Parts: sequence; structure tokens; C-alpha cells
Amino acid sequence: MKIVTTIKEMQTFSKQMLRSGKAIGFVPTMGYLHEGHMSLVEEAVKQNDCVIMSIFVNPLQFGPDEDFDRYPRDLKRDEELAKQAGVDVLFYPDVKDMYPKERTTRLTVQERVDTLCGDSRPGHFDGVATVVMKLLQIVLPDRAYFGMKDAQQVAVIKGLVEDYNVPVEVVPCPIIREEDGLAKSSRNVYLTPTERKEAIQLSRSLDVATKAIELGETDPVIIKDLIFSLLKQTSGKIDYVEVLSYPDLGNIEVMKGKIIIAVAVQFSAARLIDNKVTTSQEIAIGV
Amino acid sequence: MKIVTTIKEMQTFSKQMLRSGKAIGFVPTMGYLHEGHMSLVEEAVKQNDCVIMSIFVNPLQFGPDEDFDRYPRDLKRDEELAKQAGVDVLFYPDVKDMYPKERTTRLTVQERVDTLCGDSRPGHFDGVATVVMKLLQIVLPDRAYFGMKDAQQVAVIKGLVEDYNVPVEVVPCPIIREEDGLAKSSRNVYLTPTERKEAIQLSRSLDVATKAIELGETDPVIIKDLIFSLLKQTSGKIDYVEVLSYPDLGNIEVMKGKIIIAVAVQFSAARLIDNKVTTSQEIAIGV
Repeated sequence: MKIVTTIKEMQTFSKQMLRSGKAIGFVPTMGYLHEGHMSLVEEAVKQNDCVIMSIFVNPLQFGPDEDFDRYPRDLKRDEELAKQAGVDVLFYPDVKDMYPKERTTRLTVQERVDTLCGDSRPGHFDGVATVVMKLLQIVLPDRAYFGMKDAQQVAVIKGLVEDYNVPVEVVPCPIIREEDGLAKSSRNVYLTPTERKEAIQLSRSLDVATKAIELGETDPVIIKDLIFSLLKQTSGKIDYVEVLSYPDLGNIEVMKGKIIIAVAVQFSAARLIDNKVTTSQEIAIGV
Repeated sequence: MKIVTTIKEMQTFSKQMLRSGKAIGFVPTMGYLHEGHMSLVEEAVKQNDCVIMSIFVNPLQFGPDEDFDRYPRDLKRDEELAKQAGVDVLFYPDVKDMYPKERTTRLTVQERVDTLCGDSRPGHFDGVATVVMKLLQIVLPDRAYFGMKDAQQVAVIKGLVEDYNVPVEVVPCPIIREEDGLAKSSRNVYLTPTERKEAIQLSRSLDVATKAIELGETDPVIIKDLIFSLLKQTSGKIDYVEVLSYPDLGNIEVMKGKIIIAVAVQFSAARLIDNKVTTSQEIAIGV
């Protein structure tokens, strides 16, 4: 596995790959890799000639009171995992190379950000859009892989890619979970043992909601109440419980078409999110 | 010469070019071609395997009271000129293909726009940045050619390309002029015969200013006064006369380093601009 630390070298390498007709699969990450990331790599390996993973904890997408400084990092371990998973190039730029001076432009996300994580993390998706646009220009992938745990991020990035005709296919990949259902996340390490047990209520509440829809419930308000009642049993603070259209993230009055059921809970040192994207009619007829 | 009218076909063609190792030179235009555009093509032909020219009158960069609807168009003539100049592909997308729906993001220019044309055309450079970003993703050029008549545009686009690491070399090309010095422009056709004669005062005032600097004048205020006195002799309304640093477009107190002397005059149906970018020390020692 090749390790690249500068934008210039990465872009030169990718241009050469392109020119020799090779397809590049790209897995952007903030590191501290877990099985969720590994599943993205697995998919990328299947579909491309060369798999590039980036590890970059992007300061632009963290708010001033968020966990940028203490976001978990372990490059040695990440290198080993990436190599085992079949990554060909690990791109590990530093902040000064990515943001060398004051930018002359701003890229801001206007739609799909006044709800879910966008609501509680102002500016977060502007930071995500900016770094993803940069990484796509540097890595020049044919396909880029994103986990559906960040379903709102996937929707925002799809919008970005469409807006500017970026020549990349955005490939969403399913959420990977612990055995008890907790969605894998780099931030799970911050949970206390008690919180770790409580945290299964996130996925459990989504399962219960799905079951209720299967049994015929069509009112989003009742679905949300059901989820609330389960999440209230944790010591965490509920950030949001939402049932929205997907990928537009608009409010809905009845279950119809593609919907997302999404939750976020703030524990003492970790804010966890989880979601289920589903087509409500499919559920209603038991598919 | 191949004519392409859809984004999809253009991007597929460019990807194939890239994959076969060919270098693409790109000349973005709004059509109604003149020798200024032709000089860009000439440069692009020299440096690349394939030259792509776009013709797209971009609604996003026109203000509500500007001349989008009556901007001159003559595709038949443009096709002939492009072919003669050595263009390999003419890309001529329509507005619905470029802007099919409400965008989910905004790209705004923060620096270098509170002066010159940015001051009198609010939002203009946001529209330029957006369409250029899209065209670069569609055409995938190694090099993109821009005329220095729009020196502020060149500075803005260089900033954009740096901000997002777009893998393209921005190549600025010199202003092409009529025999009497008037900078070539698609909008020159709107001048009345009298205005056409008066219009030479734009380039003449820049020449006089340059001469004054050569003779030792170092005060931007005096240089601007000199230019004003010449432009006042036209029937047009002076929009701006500026002496700024380049490419940062900052105010300067003495001539030093790379500077731009820039003017804009509004005639009855055409707003003309002209400029001279120069290194003041070079002028001072008579180079």
C-alpha cells in the first residue's frame, strides 16, 4: 500500500491512473477506521482497478464547541486495517496543505440542511461539501463510497455532485452494526459502559418504528412518539427524532414513497446518530 | 469539427480523451466570436491534443437589468469561425441542461469582488464561478484559456481553481485590439458610430497612464485623475477608474509590484471595459 501525504503527489498519481485507463474507487474517511469503513473499501475493491482512501479530520466541518481536537486518531492502526482491506493508496494530507490560506470563495449548502444534523450543527455541511469537493478534484475518482449512517451527508453530497456535474458516481453503502444493533461509529469509544448498553435503544427504536409501519401505522407523529418513548429510557439527551422524505429531507404528513427515520442522541461525551431509509409502501405490504 | 449539445455526451467524450492520454485545451466563451476568442484557440491548439470550445450565454452571471436577452448570438457564424481556428469540439449546451432544477448549494466569491466590475455587477462573479466550475467538470481540461480583457475574471477563476484544487492550468492570454487600440469585445457592435470613435479613449487613457508611470509618476491618485480627464471627453458615463494590486485587487498607495490599471465606461447600449496589467518597477526602468 502506497502512502501519499501531499495534494500534489496524490493528484499527479490519480491523473496518471486516469490516463492509463484505470478506474479509481475512493473512500473518504476521518480515520479511526471500523468495520463500516471496511465495508466501503470492500465494495470499492469489487468495482474499481485502484482504491484510494483518504484520512483527513476536516476542521471545517466541526463547530467551535465540537470535538475536533479530541476526535479519535490512530494512524498506525488505520494503516494496518486499510492495507488488510485492500486499499492501494492511503492519502493522508495535512490541514495546511488542504487549507493553505484564506479561501477566496465559499461553498454553502442551501437545501436539506435545516433539519437533522444540519439544524444542531450549523455550517457542518458547508464544511463537508467544501472538503468533499476538494478531495474529488484531488483524487479524481470514478466512484466515491459513503456510508448511509450519515444519510443526510449522502443526500447533500449527491446534490453537490449534481449541481457542479462532478464526474463521479456517489455509491451509498449500508450501515454496519455491532451484534446488538448499535451502528458502528468512531465516536462509540467515548461511551461509558452504562451508555454503551443504553445506546442499543437507537437501533431498537428504529426497528420498533419499522414494525409499527409494517403493521399499518401511517402517521409520522405517532411513529415519532413511539421512538421518543424508547429513547427517553436512556440517560442521553434526545437531539432529534424525525420522519422525512428521502433524499429531499422534507416534512411528510403520511408515509409514502422513500422515507428516512432518523435519530440523534447526545450522551456525556459522544453524540450518536442512526437512521433507516425505506420505502414505506414496501414495508406496508410486508416486503 | 464535432458539435456536442448535451452535458452527458460532452463529459463522456472528455473522459474517453483523458483515458486515452490526450491533453484537452478548453476555451469557454459566450459566443459571438471575435479575434480575441480566436487568439485563445490559437494558444490552445499549440499546447494540447484536443481543443474544446464552449458557447454558453450564462444567465447566472447577468443581473436582472443587464443584457442577457439581447446579448448578441450568431451560432452559424461562430461554428464557421471555430472550425477555421482549429477547434475540435464545439460544446453548445442549453440552459435547461446546465441548470435543470433549483441548485442545492451556492458558490459565492468572497474576495476580489468588492471592486471593479464586481462592485457594479453584484452576483456577477458568483455566476461566473458557478458556470466555470460546472464547465471544468464537464470538459475536464488540462488547460483553460481566458482573455485578460476580463482580468478580474481571470483573478477570480484562479482563486476558485486553487480553493478546490481543480486539476486545470488557468492560462491567461493577452488582450486583442482593433487597429486603433479598442479592445475586441462582443459588445462593441452596440456602439453608435460616434461612440465607436470615442471608445478609443479607453485604451488611449491606459497608454497615457503607462507613459506617466514610465516617466516616474508613482501616485495612483494622479494616475487616476489623468485617466478621468481623458475618459470625460467621451459621451459615456465613467463606471470606474482604478489602480490596484494584481491579482489580489487590493488598494495601493504607491506603484509597486504587479498592478492593474482598469477602466469601465457605460455607453448608450454597451458597457466597455479595458485594462493593463503591468509590473510597475519594469515600467519605471523602461522595460
